[in-house]
Amino acid sequence: MNVKFSAPKENLLYGINAVQKAISAKNTVPILSGIYLKAQGGRLTFAATDLEISIECTVPALIISEGDIVLPGRYFAELTRRLPEGEVIFEYQPDSVSMKITYENAESSIKGWKGEEFPTISQINGDKSIAIIPSEFKNLVKQTTFCANKDDVRPVFTGALLEVENNQLKMVSTDSYRLSFKAGAIQNPDSCSFQKVVPVKALEELSRILKDDDEDLLHITYNQNQMSFSNSEIHFNTRLIDSNYPDYRRVIPSEHQTLIKFKKRSLQNTIDRATLFSSEKDGTNVIKIKIEDENINITSQSDYGKIDENLPIYQDGENLSIAFNAKYLTDAFKTMDYEDLQATFCGSLGAAVFTGLNDDSYLYLILPLRS
Amino acid sequence: MNVKFSAPKENLLYGINAVQKAISAKNTVPILSGIYLKAQGGRLTFAATDLEISIECTVPALIISEGDIVLPGRYFAELTRRLPEGEVIFEYQPDSVSMKITYENAESSIKGWKGEEFPTISQINGDKSIAIIPSEFKNLVKQTTFCANKDDVRPVFTGALLEVENNQLKMVSTDSYRLSFKAGAIQNPDSCSFQKVVPVKALEELSRILKDDDEDLLHITYNQNQMSFSNSEIHFNTRLIDSNYPDYRRVIPSEHQTLIKFKKRSLQNTIDRATLFSSEKDGTNVIKIKIEDENINITSQSDYGKIDENLPIYQDGENLSIAFNAKYLTDAFKTMDYEDLQATFCGSLGAAVFTGLNDDSYLYLILPLRS
Repeated sequence: MNVKFSAPKENLLYGINAVQKAISAKNTVPILSGIYLKAQGGRLTFAATDLEISIECTVPALIISEGDIVLPGRYFAELTRRLPEGEVIFEYQPDSVSMKITYENAESSIKGWKGEEFPTISQINGDKSIAIIPSEFKNLVKQTTFCANKDDVRPVFTGALLEVENNQLKMVSTDSYRLSFKAGAIQNPDSCSFQKVVPVKALEELSRILKDDDEDLLHITYNQNQMSFSNSEIHFNTRLIDSNYPDYRRVIPSEHQTLIKFKKRSLQNTIDRATLFSSEKDGTNVIKIKIEDENINITSQSDYGKIDENLPIYQDGENLSIAFNAKYLTDAFKTMDYEDLQATFCGSLGAAVFTGLNDDSYLYLILPLRS
Repeated sequence: MNVKFSAPKENLLYGINAVQKAISAKNTVPILSGIYLKAQGGRLTFAATDLEISIECTVPALIISEGDIVLPGRYFAELTRRLPEGEVIFEYQPDSVSMKITYENAESSIKGWKGEEFPTISQINGDKSIAIIPSEFKNLVKQTTFCANKDDVRPVFTGALLEVENNQLKMVSTDSYRLSFKAGAIQNPDSCSFQKVVPVKALEELSRILKDDDEDLLHITYNQNQMSFSNSEIHFNTRLIDSNYPDYRRVIPSEHQTLIKFKKRSLQNTIDRATLFSSEKDGTNVIKIKIEDENINITSQSDYGKIDENLPIYQDGENLSIAFNAKYLTDAFKTMDYEDLQATFCGSLGAAVFTGLNDDSYLYLILPLRS
């Protein structure tokens, strides 16, 4: 059949923007630079895949004739953005394998591919799934995935651990120098449990396109190789990383020698300034911290200048001198959703642990530098 | 004397942002990566130069001790942006040739250079100057300088002509394929007249830092090699381009065979869409235009698709087929401040001229492509 439909520009752009990041940038297979379009039953489905992730998005449309086609992503997106607001009709032209687009006193056409040439997007028939509030899920991603290293040669560090336990979804990321952990509530308790490593690139892309509609729960299901995330409009598929994730529980110290409590914003501002003059040796921005008598002293020094700042804090336990890579602190402060923080230390060489005050759903661990 | 002052962060950032673009990016002379600071008479003057342009900006400050220093632009700017809002004291440390900065419970310092090592910024003792409303001046720049070619090997095409005539400041830019002209009123009539070629890079930078305060007139003066632009806060100097500007009056056709009038926005939107499918041969985006019986037809075609649009217009004179580089139309439409435009044509090979309807202060000329 010759697909023919009309849809508000807003709906078209929503569909295009949702799937666009799955369009293959490499373009080794030309059709993967395209967006697959299917008109069926009053709905228009957009799909794209780079064979690592696939995204489908469904929007309401006026379907005059059902069918499918693949259009080059860049041209379809750009033309749609520039279309006028009024009525626009899309109609497949089988002779030229192109989409004719008519509006106002005008007509344009984009050459495409036949719908059946698009690779089939495999569906996961997972019989078990968990449901989570989308804003909660986005919060897990925001507070953890920055710790992963997307360019790491070790695949496991390009992913985040997703673990279901005690009716919570736990997300963990690490690059072996720092680790973040965040847990969020599952809305359908006792549904299933799993431990899977998911590429953070996929999690961040999904997070970007998910709307903050708390009514429209995100359902997560999986099989051995893939995980899928779905709500009423989006269906997002990603391959899994087939590696064992390091046991994060063993890394977190169970005891400490020093504990401090402080306002996040104050220490964050101080460290932002100190970063300016941290010496940049091998990409490491060294800042030094002294905790002594309910005071934290932050210093840094480079060829261009130096910083020496003091902040009053709550302190429990021993005094301490410790050095950090400033970048690992500034990255983390940017994503932490807490006004007040607590940090614990095990001497100058042990891991430091930051948590929200009176909140055990979040944890950020960082290894110090030998100063 | 050891310069010492305090100033609101807002004032400091205003000064830094104003002069920052004059900081030399090339850095062959280290001190030119710096911002010169002079504290004198209740005012703080910021200055920077790359030896092509120089910018000075003066802001109110609490001067505790007068003097001057040069600070590395990047570190001074970044630290100031990150300073807290409260009181901050800057104090020169002669022993280390550095600026000590104290705030809250903290102290930092930036290494600098002695003030006297900064190159003297030459002042123009022009006895004649013109005055223009800043927003008017910015409008001249916006509507003309995009036609110049900042990378052209021919110096004259990297500049704009500034011409004073009939109590108007006229600005002209061209890259030899297109030309724009805009005139604005001078506030002190019969003051002087000149014809100078000014680097568009300088004009655009000046335009960026000028505030839209119509009370604070912009004064323009010059000598043989330089031109300076001043208001109550900014003093901006640029070298001139020592070339004869082409006689733009000879290029503008005095007659036409076709005249059309149209809504700018409608034609702009159509051409934006047509650009998508304009064939890109040697960087030229060809679109074709047919004017016939009070209708304008715009078409373009590439390997990816095609556009065919029609708009009703007012037409006087002959029918016409003509082709343009789409980029030269989209660039110009973006900067034209008119709802309604008029265009005149001298056949398929003659220059086309766009003007505001009933407004002879603006003109845009474009050469067609041989189709």
